[in-house]
Amino acid sequence: MNYETYLCLDQLLTAQRPLSLQNKRPAHDEWLFITVHHTYEIWFKQILIELDSILASLSSEQVEEREMDVVVARLERVNKIFHVIAGQFDILETMTPMDFLEFRDLIFQASGFQSYQFRLLENKLGLRPGDRLVYHEKPYTSDLSPKKADEVKASESAATLFDRLDAWLARTPFLAAKEFAFWDEYKKAVEVMFQHDEKFIRDNSTLSGDEKSRLVGVVHGQRQMFVDLFNERAYDEQRARGEWRLSYRAIHAAFLIQLYRDQPIFHLPFRLITEVLNLDSHLAQWRYRHALMVKRMLGMRMGSGGSVGEKYLRETTDKHKIFEDFYKLTTFFIPRSRLPKLPDEFARQLDFAFKSGR
Amino acid sequence: MNYETYLCLDQLLTAQRPLSLQNKRPAHDEWLFITVHHTYEIWFKQILIELDSILASLSSEQVEEREMDVVVARLERVNKIFHVIAGQFDILETMTPMDFLEFRDLIFQASGFQSYQFRLLENKLGLRPGDRLVYHEKPYTSDLSPKKADEVKASESAATLFDRLDAWLARTPFLAAKEFAFWDEYKKAVEVMFQHDEKFIRDNSTLSGDEKSRLVGVVHGQRQMFVDLFNERAYDEQRARGEWRLSYRAIHAAFLIQLYRDQPIFHLPFRLITEVLNLDSHLAQWRYRHALMVKRMLGMRMGSGGSVGEKYLRETTDKHKIFEDFYKLTTFFIPRSRLPKLPDEFARQLDFAFKSGR
Amino acid sequence: MNYETYLCLDQLLTAQRPLSLQNKRPAHDEWLFITVHHTYEIWFKQILIELDSILASLSSEQVEEREMDVVVARLERVNKIFHVIAGQFDILETMTPMDFLEFRDLIFQASGFQSYQFRLLENKLGLRPGDRLVYHEKPYTSDLSPKKADEVKASESAATLFDRLDAWLARTPFLAAKEFAFWDEYKKAVEVMFQHDEKFIRDNSTLSGDEKSRLVGVVHGQRQMFVDLFNERAYDEQRARGEWRLSYRAIHAAFLIQLYRDQPIFHLPFRLITEVLNLDSHLAQWRYRHALMVKRMLGMRMGSGGSVGEKYLRETTDKHKIFEDFYKLTTFFIPRSRLPKLPDEFARQLDFAFKSGR
Amino acid sequence: MNYETYLCLDQLLTAQRPLSLQNKRPAHDEWLFITVHHTYEIWFKQILIELDSILASLSSEQVEEREMDVVVARLERVNKIFHVIAGQFDILETMTPMDFLEFRDLIFQASGFQSYQFRLLENKLGLRPGDRLVYHEKPYTSDLSPKKADEVKASESAATLFDRLDAWLARTPFLAAKEFAFWDEYKKAVEVMFQHDEKFIRDNSTLSGDEKSRLVGVVHGQRQMFVDLFNERAYDEQRARGEWRLSYRAIHAAFLIQLYRDQPIFHLPFRLITEVLNLDSHLAQWRYRHALMVKRMLGMRMGSGGSVGEKYLRETTDKHKIFEDFYKLTTFFIPRSRLPKLPDEFARQLDFAFKSGR
Repeated sequence: MNYETYLCLDQLLTAQRPLSLQNKRPAHDEWLFITVHHTYEIWFKQILIELDSILASLSSEQVEEREMDVVVARLERVNKIFHVIAGQFDILETMTPMDFLEFRDLIFQASGFQSYQFRLLENKLGLRPGDRLVYHEKPYTSDLSPKKADEVKASESAATLFDRLDAWLARTPFLAAKEFAFWDEYKKAVEVMFQHDEKFIRDNSTLSGDEKSRLVGVVHGQRQMFVDLFNERAYDEQRARGEWRLSYRAIHAAFLIQLYRDQPIFHLPFRLITEVLNLDSHLAQWRYRHALMVKRMLGMRMGSGGSVGEKYLRETTDKHKIFEDFYKLTTFFIPRSRLPKLPDEFARQLDFAFKSGR
Repeated sequence: MNYETYLCLDQLLTAQRPLSLQNKRPAHDEWLFITVHHTYEIWFKQILIELDSILASLSSEQVEEREMDVVVARLERVNKIFHVIAGQFDILETMTPMDFLEFRDLIFQASGFQSYQFRLLENKLGLRPGDRLVYHEKPYTSDLSPKKADEVKASESAATLFDRLDAWLARTPFLAAKEFAFWDEYKKAVEVMFQHDEKFIRDNSTLSGDEKSRLVGVVHGQRQMFVDLFNERAYDEQRARGEWRLSYRAIHAAFLIQLYRDQPIFHLPFRLITEVLNLDSHLAQWRYRHALMVKRMLGMRMGSGGSVGEKYLRETTDKHKIFEDFYKLTTFFIPRSRLPKLPDEFARQLDFAFKSGR
Repeated sequence: MNYETYLCLDQLLTAQRPLSLQNKRPAHDEWLFITVHHTYEIWFKQILIELDSILASLSSEQVEEREMDVVVARLERVNKIFHVIAGQFDILETMTPMDFLEFRDLIFQASGFQSYQFRLLENKLGLRPGDRLVYHEKPYTSDLSPKKADEVKASESAATLFDRLDAWLARTPFLAAKEFAFWDEYKKAVEVMFQHDEKFIRDNSTLSGDEKSRLVGVVHGQRQMFVDLFNERAYDEQRARGEWRLSYRAIHAAFLIQLYRDQPIFHLPFRLITEVLNLDSHLAQWRYRHALMVKRMLGMRMGSGGSVGEKYLRETTDKHKIFEDFYKLTTFFIPRSRLPKLPDEFARQLDFAFKSGR
Repeated sequence: MNYETYLCLDQLLTAQRPLSLQNKRPAHDEWLFITVHHTYEIWFKQILIELDSILASLSSEQVEEREMDVVVARLERVNKIFHVIAGQFDILETMTPMDFLEFRDLIFQASGFQSYQFRLLENKLGLRPGDRLVYHEKPYTSDLSPKKADEVKASESAATLFDRLDAWLARTPFLAAKEFAFWDEYKKAVEVMFQHDEKFIRDNSTLSGDEKSRLVGVVHGQRQMFVDLFNERAYDEQRARGEWRLSYRAIHAAFLIQLYRDQPIFHLPFRLITEVLNLDSHLAQWRYRHALMVKRMLGMRMGSGGSVGEKYLRETTDKHKIFEDFYKLTTFFIPRSRLPKLPDEFARQLDFAFKSGR
């Protein structure tokens, strides 16, 4: 065994087969076109491997802390992969539209839209079939080979990162701690903050009556948003309308973790949420960059495979959202100085055994 | 003189003054917030310096080729700057929303929306006042100091990169060459191509009658787009409706340059158009990344300075377009093999003196 | 207060003063030269601010876990800063050597070598004065203004990241645990591994006698390296010769943390070591890139300020090492399957209070 | 035909075959290890394709300007590829040394040293066999399969980018122009500059006698470097000693192009030289980054395949130089204001036919 046989280089490096070459009208840049797609697909495979291992780790009812370390490390890896492959568009854009035209007709029926690995990726992350943009009034799997289409359809009902994360958050034992009723305490702290803000405005002698009314109105408006969040029924109604996706209990846990991220036991969960936000941001940037590239290469033409090209891609940037809730939560953070203080007994549970045992 | 005095380091490095420090409640991350804004503003200043020099070069009626080399090199520089500063958002995002909340109230009235250098930059590139998103029903200069507001307003009616580029393209002498009527020849070549495509479909015995009708319909639809482009009056109507912005003559030149980019005299003009597309793409990516960062930091809250935050920023990504026409042109390219061949006499004019003199 | 006054933009944006402009022979690219140096110096200031806060956190005898989270987050931030500013060389290189020559003579006496912030940075990280390359046979502070030179000299004997890290590692309580004598157990595991390797070779009937002798020799050579590591006196002798820098106890802790990184209490310490390695790698890449840029701009000439330019910079890449020990440790890792298993009682101490209390 | 069949995805995506999986002791990170190597090899293949097309273009005795445009564009592409793949090391480093140890023994005999595509790449760029570091006292092809070894050996005596570039430069017709004897004029300009510098020092009443002597000594030292350059025999002796590699005539052309880069006919040649410098810089950065990664993963151990690892790689960074001459040239540039002015007649030959014909 050596480098060449270990890596199956003969198999790998004979998979690039330009059609223009077979048609005896070689278009040099078709090599680049294939190379870029090949590196994308190999990286997609790697992302799927990482994602599957993450989903497996999160599937048990009781996830060990040491497994969470692996989960976070692999999400970080996926994010680094997305960072690098976003840069690959810069390489592809060294092919000019005129160079692309040399072989575009030959590959008209092949479209990135048919990348089953990318569809799998979206599904495993948690993109719901109903949230997909409809395209040419056909199901999004219609152009895949039957076997791949089945695999992609099956992934719709299999475990997703979003669902696993929701369940894991909802299981957080600290929500039910008898020493600290987090949600109630948070409600109170928020109410104190708004009362303080309103009093501050009313007592401020430098403001006119009109100014005071206007500013108090702003405070009331903000308070109403919190009131809606604190009311489980209101939340569930919002959720039914699609304004939220996480379960109510998962929302509580996500707040607890982010507001008290400096407690040792929340370090890893906080990093997990951070990496999920990074993942969402990277995926959005990748889609946006993809759309810009297609606009540049094709203008208003249809894309390869007959897709509607840039417009469709740009719209997926806005519509194919998965982890949007985690951004929304930020709206309801309050400054550390206003947070309820954790009871000592409770804080001890969030610390390491070693220290609490001393 | 030494490094320290040459660079006025004392002045430079005492301009970072956190309000939280002055208020005796130091928020560590306010340093980062200021540093990131400072490096942005210094880079914006550099971009404006490059842009002013480019506008000056393009202002003369007859721009020397050696000046065009400088223009292209400086646009490339601006693009490299945008690439680097887009990465700065990754640094800023190491500040978490909770860390931002520590000093956010103190700086509530300061907003990136008030960066007069960025407004100048948009105007000098060619963003038209009427194309700006209206914000809080107030003019976009309303929060600037009077002196800066005047400067920004003045830039609205001063030279812009878009206008200079349009004029420079429109002056291309080769459009009027007696040896080669480019636009007429291009029209003919396009017509030949569509007739060939239609015939190819009709003669194809493997297609059903329905298939043939459908495909011929597609060809006719594409031809109509060209017909509209080739009709100056139709073009001017589209332009009046805002669908195009370049003058008709500039459009011709942009086609000529991109279709025949391999002619020596078109090398630099082609690179110029390429760098303009890169600039547009970089600016769009910067805006999009900015919006993602704000969404992450603020959720649905109002931004600092009371701006509507992420939503406004994301919409500018779609609406504050300047160089869109250059993407649209791509739609009307045809393969090299179908391009009209340049008469030898004409090709000679596009070559170097040295060679033609041999 | 608004954006402009909050950020002291008038002060910031009037600190760019090209000498070529004052001398009435404007060299356009001097603007870029100044801008690049200004952004570097502002980022260096930010790095120093982060570093000071990290050193302060690590200065107490008992660093709280929640502080370690902040320490790691700020090191990550410093690494992201280094990543971005390394990219700035790409911008500077858009200035060609001929463009630099236009103003080089004017600034001959100013050299990046005189950046006192960079000297401070090196010292605070832990570069020892004796490890510095001697330059022109003069002390490295000789070209600084007296006040800055004093500040830099003072930092030589102040706290450094290296020392704080060494002390923090050496304090690890788990090295002295009565349930698990880590160093002794590790020695035994290594010995078992080498005996197994040697037996494996001797029992291998496919190998010739010569092959066996050669391979056994390799195993013995590797074992000797471990023997030297396991002998405190041998280690101290190597350390006296400058082959190691960490204290023996810190070395033990660094092994414990990295080999058992999946134990919850080691997550943060492991990330800390990882970020220190990242920092070292980023600094090395920054130096190397800097040297390439100078070589390109100046060839074999002396640099601005009369420095010996690229050669000096490239040598600092190899010689100005600080955290080299952390790379060396890797040499002595053994596979997880061969690691001594942690006694349950001991593992419980490395876990969270909550879990162990259930 | 669709996306899947066009790209031979089944072949491509079954070439990743972890040995640890076949051995029933799956090491998750072996997937990443293979993926990173696969994307590297696919990109290397693409770089070789671009390089071959560049060598073909440069092989004719008379390279058309329009072909030079393609050559430069493809070199730019290669540089963008190197930029992206350098970032891949960040992904690989998410695998920790302990994770690597899980499968390292299985692949001990496979080493990146055996990448025949990388050897081909080095040879095609122009790395001379005699300039290679000797490794384990064996030829660098000794671990390749016989067929690949032959291919690599053959490339040693085939066309290289360095040689093609040297020949192309040496053919520059303008060196022999009767209107302008460039080299003689340059010599004169340099001499005038040094006389001026010396006189400036001697006439400077603020300098002491000692200062004057010292500074005049510096000027004389610099002049001597130019004298050696201007003497063809001295140059050839330096070249025989390996201090220069380009032919004397190629050196002249490289100066002419870089000093007078603003002449239209030199735009493309200047960009070509710039991209060659970029390529050299990218390759150096890639090697340096590679060495850092190996140091981190392996410490002082031997690399996979038994290579001496980081030390060898770091040394190749310094020793495997190809285009070093182009950096050295910079040393001998003089400011634009001191350059000999081009005679009008000559300048006209460097311009476009169109303009000169008016």
